Amino acid sequence: MVCIGTGRLAYNLMPQLEKAGCRVIELYNRTPEHATALAKRLPQARLIHDLTSITAEGDLYVFTLRDDAIAQVSASLVSLEDGKKIFVHCSGVSAIDILPFQRRASFYPLQTFSYTHEIDWTTTPILITATIPEIQRQLVELAHRMSQVVQEVTDEQKAYLHLAAVFANNFTNHMLTLADRICIEKGVPFSLLKPLIEETIHKAMDIGPEPGQTGPAIRRDRQTIEKHLHLLKTQPELAEVYRLITASIQRR
Amino acid sequence: MVCIGTGRLAYNLMPQLEKAGCRVIELYNRTPEHATALAKRLPQARLIHDLTSITAEGDLYVFTLRDDAIAQVSASLVSLEDGKKIFVHCSGVSAIDILPFQRRASFYPLQTFSYTHEIDWTTTPILITATIPEIQRQLVELAHRMSQVVQEVTDEQKAYLHLAAVFANNFTNHMLTLADRICIEKGVPFSLLKPLIEETIHKAMDIGPEPGQTGPAIRRDRQTIEKHLHLLKTQPELAEVYRLITASIQRR
Repeated sequence: MVCIGTGRLAYNLMPQLEKAGCRVIELYNRTPEHATALAKRLPQARLIHDLTSITAEGDLYVFTLRDDAIAQVSASLVSLEDGKKIFVHCSGVSAIDILPFQRRASFYPLQTFSYTHEIDWTTTPILITATIPEIQRQLVELAHRMSQVVQEVTDEQKAYLHLAAVFANNFTNHMLTLADRICIEKGVPFSLLKPLIEETIHKAMDIGPEPGQTGPAIRRDRQTIEKHLHLLKTQPELAEVYRLITASIQRR
Repeated sequence: MVCIGTGRLAYNLMPQLEKAGCRVIELYNRTPEHATALAKRLPQARLIHDLTSITAEGDLYVFTLRDDAIAQVSASLVSLEDGKKIFVHCSGVSAIDILPFQRRASFYPLQTFSYTHEIDWTTTPILITATIPEIQRQLVELAHRMSQVVQEVTDEQKAYLHLAAVFANNFTNHMLTLADRICIEKGVPFSLLKPLIEETIHKAMDIGPEPGQTGPAIRRDRQTIEKHLHLLKTQPELAEVYRLITASIQRR
């Protein structure tokens, strides 16, 4: 196996693929210094930074780059195709046809990755997109060695799941950031909100987020909404977010 | 103790106050049918729906009504004040001076309540606002019998914490609702997002939400943002939320 890209996703995924029986023989990164953390986790893998020297010995080539880089880098590797190798990207948003190979697929773990947190792979959904049945079968089998939740999806289904994930992860996290900023600004501890946040998520997971919606917006409590906007009068950007999301809640 | 209002908050709070040693002798609700659920939990309490017949025998009167109703209902109870009774509201957003009594305070559990989920009271912060030291002491002591996290706050600090709670609870929950709607619209299971959502919250609690921000907005990945907006082209309201929150993330 060859890993192209050595960022946060590769840092988490590659050791797990090894546990599932793969052997990473080569790691590519344009700037090798960025690959140090992952290289330490895969001491047997050769670290390269020159695309032209990439090995032809791999059976599976995994692109963990940003979407624009996947297209660019893979374009210079078309000569590797030999009718046996499989070329896979791990992008949530891109279709498999951004890879200029016949034997291509997508292997997308639906999770947020970091350098500090170990995630639970057994529950992390792995979404597989492939048009060649033999490749699909192989990747599904590999994914099942890592996770209990493996799903075959079309390019379109995956793209919408990725979009939904932006709301569910990036945007919820940003709401917490804004709450944190209000606490910092007013000198009150954000930690006081933790039990509330945990209960919010438990409830949403349990009964669904829409039935669990509470607060001034959904009960159309105009007096409270006006008070909150008054508290935000020196922070017009926060007030704008407050207004728009309140309106969005009320549109349901 | 007398409970004025019998909604979701009272439904959760009153049994807990009884566990902490209070005895609820009377429950008031304008429409008694709305009080059935709570009345069942407090069989010894008299249920009334006529404000003029409210007992003068209480030591503590707790208003669990909506903010506008607190002002309105409490205004007709000023004759109860006798220099011994304590009058408390449980509003997050209102100052204590919306109560027309001398011996007034606020007792605000910072949590989201429902009829179906039992919350963990021991970790739920209870915020106390009072200007009379003796009342403050009594309420802090009572709160400590319910929770490990009791904090004295000013009216202003509490109002900002309540505002932050709207971002942390109502707005995060709405982001999950929008993610859910995208999944429903495209026939993909929302449950695939659960491990991601749980990891998002764990990470935010652990390293703080701002350092934990990931996704196309924070890495200014314009190509992915454009693809997402294209996927939302038939849903202009969702696209508007997407655009605004993306801009808000990038402003940090």
